[in-house]
Amino acid sequence: MITIAVDAMGGDNAPAPEVHGAVRAAQNQDVNVILVGREEALKSELSKHSGWKKLPIRIVNANDVVTMEDNPAKALRTKRDSSIRVAVRLVRDGEADGVVSAGNTGAVMALAKTVLGMIPGVDRPALASAFPTIKGRPAVMVDVGANVDSSAQMLAQFAVMGDIYTRLVFHTESPRVGILSIGEEEHKGNELTKTAATLLKTLPLNFIGNVEGRDLYTGLADVIVCDGFIGNVALKVSEGLVEVIKHMLKESLESSLTSKLGYLLSRDAYKDFRKRMDYSEYGGAPLLGVKGVVIICHGRSNDNAIRNAIRVAVESATEHVNDRIESEIHRWHDENGGAAGA
Amino acid sequence: MITIAVDAMGGDNAPAPEVHGAVRAAQNQDVNVILVGREEALKSELSKHSGWKKLPIRIVNANDVVTMEDNPAKALRTKRDSSIRVAVRLVRDGEADGVVSAGNTGAVMALAKTVLGMIPGVDRPALASAFPTIKGRPAVMVDVGANVDSSAQMLAQFAVMGDIYTRLVFHTESPRVGILSIGEEEHKGNELTKTAATLLKTLPLNFIGNVEGRDLYTGLADVIVCDGFIGNVALKVSEGLVEVIKHMLKESLESSLTSKLGYLLSRDAYKDFRKRMDYSEYGGAPLLGVKGVVIICHGRSNDNAIRNAIRVAVESATEHVNDRIESEIHRWHDENGGAAGA
Repeated sequence: MITIAVDAMGGDNAPAPEVHGAVRAAQNQDVNVILVGREEALKSELSKHSGWKKLPIRIVNANDVVTMEDNPAKALRTKRDSSIRVAVRLVRDGEADGVVSAGNTGAVMALAKTVLGMIPGVDRPALASAFPTIKGRPAVMVDVGANVDSSAQMLAQFAVMGDIYTRLVFHTESPRVGILSIGEEEHKGNELTKTAATLLKTLPLNFIGNVEGRDLYTGLADVIVCDGFIGNVALKVSEGLVEVIKHMLKESLESSLTSKLGYLLSRDAYKDFRKRMDYSEYGGAPLLGVKGVVIICHGRSNDNAIRNAIRVAVESATEHVNDRIESEIHRWHDENGGAAGA
Repeated sequence: MITIAVDAMGGDNAPAPEVHGAVRAAQNQDVNVILVGREEALKSELSKHSGWKKLPIRIVNANDVVTMEDNPAKALRTKRDSSIRVAVRLVRDGEADGVVSAGNTGAVMALAKTVLGMIPGVDRPALASAFPTIKGRPAVMVDVGANVDSSAQMLAQFAVMGDIYTRLVFHTESPRVGILSIGEEEHKGNELTKTAATLLKTLPLNFIGNVEGRDLYTGLADVIVCDGFIGNVALKVSEGLVEVIKHMLKESLESSLTSKLGYLLSRDAYKDFRKRMDYSEYGGAPLLGVKGVVIICHGRSNDNAIRNAIRVAVESATEHVNDRIESEIHRWHDENGGAAGA
């Protein structure tokens, strides 16, 4: 059975969502969970579930916590007994098959890279994010924030990793891979995207060329490749807009008695709509390219998000995503005489 | 009185929206409108309004049209009697104070730059886009697609132009100017945004540092500066998401009889909501930096969008936006001994 370590102290509301998400996962999934953090705090939270001791959950103590304000490089050097570091070490040492954290993203990425190391042939790790599309199945965008000023070669590696992740975890056949650009025509884009397109054409991928920002949610592409700066902006703009729309919709609906009544009657439809727009359903963002399954969640993650992140971590481990990435990158490297990766 | 030339043939549904938008503007605003395009087609469309001849509308004939598929550089060289070219020439020759077009954006920009010329000291024109914020007043993003691979100096010029536009056309006092980045902290961003930030600090602007994608719609900044590639992606992602949300909401609401009933009762609230999210209310995207008022609208613009674009063109001309841009750029240039602009 798969074991997943959960950094139980990193998120904004830790350890409650982490603990309750872990309990739900342990109850409903085939998984062992290791909760990493201050033992007393974790026991206290766990005791809210009467039968918790019967579940496949154990605690590993860690006294320190990397906060959201901590500088990642500094946290890497100083906080050696932080919950996230201890959790990542469990993966390195084979005691866990993957790690989930809702903590300081920069710190998680720096730690994962340093403690777990890179998959041979992958230059830099990339953060992938799944989101809903009109087609009903998720699309994955890579990179959404691990790197800025990426090279075309990095984008090509993002494509290979994103393709594998989407196939194995979302079971999408022959994922359509696109480069995020400013027009569908080949001549549209910047230096980076045009060079990356040339490279992607040489790969054994279902490469469909450029996709526009407008197509993110239409499901035109299953994997959308971009530099981390653009990906992060695209993601955050979307999140901000969803919040604003919910707010405006609520305001509009509360503006009169008839519309309030109308709202009451459509309440289920709203619930359904909000659920479909709920990022927490998609299970967090995997960090691709490191030698271990690492899923990074929003600091604001609720227990549902944690539960889903554990599910995605289990799937990634079960499907040996990292082994596949390693062999694909290696194969490409061989075929291209070193053009593909270091 | 201000005269605005309207390229009546460029949009997806031309000339109907252009003509009807022009009629509405001529009826309700203090403006002379020149409709540019195939005279017969325009007269035919205009005749749907019985009293049109009493309105301050005249037609200038142009036999050719730049289509959405035309390569901008080629259209610039070959289609010398296109409606957009003729319309832009009217501005160059002083017969019109501004031009509105829903045509091929690349072609409009190329023509404006070539026929009108650049404001001295401005390296490249930039496309600005206004959008709604939770605060109730619009924010403006510059550049949303005129340039890719911008320099830090260009971003600084976008900031100066965006600040002036926002002050004069939206009457925002001391607009808060931010750089679109991937975190609020100064150290977050890429090479370009970090260098641009250093430059922006030296300008007489209310510069608030980095803004994240999430803050676009919160009104944290009134002017958001970025390279055209990022701006275009941010804009298109937003548009795509709004469409998907409308679609999903509709689906959710139509899913049962009770929710349909609920929808009927909240119909006014929906109308209100949809109106607030309606890009056409904000009047198109001004091309800043050329010697003339140029407003570029979506190809899909309806008559409301055209009418609003005319309104914004009138405001830009009335407030002498371009003169102010010229003097601000010049002043900055003098103060910085040439560091600011060519």
